[in-house]
Amino acid sequence: MFDKICIIGCGLIGSSLARVIKKKNLSKQINVFDKSKEVLSFAKKNLSVIASNNINETVKNSDLVIISTPLSSYKEILLSIKNDLKNNVILTDTGSAKKEVNTIISNLNLKHVNWIASHPIAGTEFSGPEAGFAELFEKRWCILSADKNIPKEEIQKLEKFWVSLGSKVKLMSFEHHDYVLSLTSHLPHAVAYSIVKTAISDDDKFKSDIIQYSAGGLRDFTRIAASDPLMWKDIFIDNSENIIKILDEFSKNINNFKKAITEKNADKLLKIFASTKNVRKEIIKAGQDVKTPDFGRKKN
Amino acid sequence: MFDKICIIGCGLIGSSLARVIKKKNLSKQINVFDKSKEVLSFAKKNLSVIASNNINETVKNSDLVIISTPLSSYKEILLSIKNDLKNNVILTDTGSAKKEVNTIISNLNLKHVNWIASHPIAGTEFSGPEAGFAELFEKRWCILSADKNIPKEEIQKLEKFWVSLGSKVKLMSFEHHDYVLSLTSHLPHAVAYSIVKTAISDDDKFKSDIIQYSAGGLRDFTRIAASDPLMWKDIFIDNSENIIKILDEFSKNINNFKKAITEKNADKLLKIFASTKNVRKEIIKAGQDVKTPDFGRKKN
Repeated sequence: MFDKICIIGCGLIGSSLARVIKKKNLSKQINVFDKSKEVLSFAKKNLSVIASNNINETVKNSDLVIISTPLSSYKEILLSIKNDLKNNVILTDTGSAKKEVNTIISNLNLKHVNWIASHPIAGTEFSGPEAGFAELFEKRWCILSADKNIPKEEIQKLEKFWVSLGSKVKLMSFEHHDYVLSLTSHLPHAVAYSIVKTAISDDDKFKSDIIQYSAGGLRDFTRIAASDPLMWKDIFIDNSENIIKILDEFSKNINNFKKAITEKNADKLLKIFASTKNVRKEIIKAGQDVKTPDFGRKKN
Repeated sequence: MFDKICIIGCGLIGSSLARVIKKKNLSKQINVFDKSKEVLSFAKKNLSVIASNNINETVKNSDLVIISTPLSSYKEILLSIKNDLKNNVILTDTGSAKKEVNTIISNLNLKHVNWIASHPIAGTEFSGPEAGFAELFEKRWCILSADKNIPKEEIQKLEKFWVSLGSKVKLMSFEHHDYVLSLTSHLPHAVAYSIVKTAISDDDKFKSDIIQYSAGGLRDFTRIAASDPLMWKDIFIDNSENIIKILDEFSKNINNFKKAITEKNADKLLKIFASTKNVRKEIIKAGQDVKTPDFGRKKN
């Protein structure tokens, strides 16, 4: 499919990409850049790719350049590689927020570069190249965003690439992406961090009890709240405008809920529950979860 | 272990109890009461128990009476069965909040009845007798609470019963139970309902997108927010005092989080994330979750 793909950043996502590109034989050559010596040595040993700490050499002659690093590093990376980008290269990424990054890239005014953002909605709470696996993108959505001036055939080429990885692809504007994801992903993460923080708070005398009896709901939030801190800090900052608005809306709903409890208003509570139960059904119908995930728990 | 166990209410928990008591042969006779004809007919067909809509006959001569109905029904049930309770019977339940219920039972001044509350921290987002299974309580905690005047050997008898079901047992005061559970279970549920409500809100034009891209975090909350409405309404009302206090604390943490995002304060965000990541490790260490639950998702 490509002669040379280069992946910048070899963490959970980058290493999963390297694995699946290799496995499906989608490029003659796979070059990986990472700043970390340990990561590079892991990549050389386990991923059968060309791993290097020379970002310019890694990028040169690549037909597809994929940035898989935290959002805050994009600017520095782009400034150092912009002269190495091949004519008509497809430049993409795997980040979870788009609008800010798109502004940075637009301002760089890169010539003959097809910048098409990718967001594979896939991941686990683990990070680092050891955590990656070739099946990570299978049956997951990947959202693409591009400006109007990007040729259709280039977008189709990238779309075909993600489909080859097992993903389903959707095209969306940068702004629309950031709004939808702020609801489906960024808000849940912000809340998960806050809920875990509340549960452990300063009450150290209850801490062991709280850990012990976490099976009643808390443990599911701790999984989400264990996601990569460096990555999430950048997402919250980049998409802050949407997230702040939505956190305000969320706080209103929390206050409404508190009011119902204070009033011991059974009808109001039941009304809230009924509406949320329906959403679950629709998510299962949309194939975004299964009816009986065992959460790996029957065995433990 | 017992000559006659009676289970009042044959939903997810009650039917799971009937199944495991039968399977492990813990009682010569298992009697089940439920108000619903459909449930009784299901129980007769599938659970090999004596199923009846006569609560008095069901309770009579039982050595162990287990109430597995929503909390708000306890009072009515207890008033109708109090004269049928055998001398020295163990009366227990499976409810998720204890203090209010304990006040109700204490006020009834039941003579020669050993009231020992049970809370098996086990369940799924499904309800009804079809959803039950014999392994539900395996390796899960069951919290017992009893007043000081209850003989130790009666508590031990009930403890042995839960251990036979595969559970680990912990003794706790009614008040302490309600506080710990408000953090580990009731707060997560209150938040899950509010987050799902926020995500779907009035923005119907985004609804299909939100369902479609829910894999980034939201779907885990929808599972929790799909739990039995009737049961949860009662829990929130019974344990409102603790939950309101904790929701206030939670709102403070959300505001703190919002402030960090507004200020684009990376250090503050990283500090929050680091603390919550540690909790996850401790939960896994405590055996309350596994490191790599597949959430049933690799297959879907």
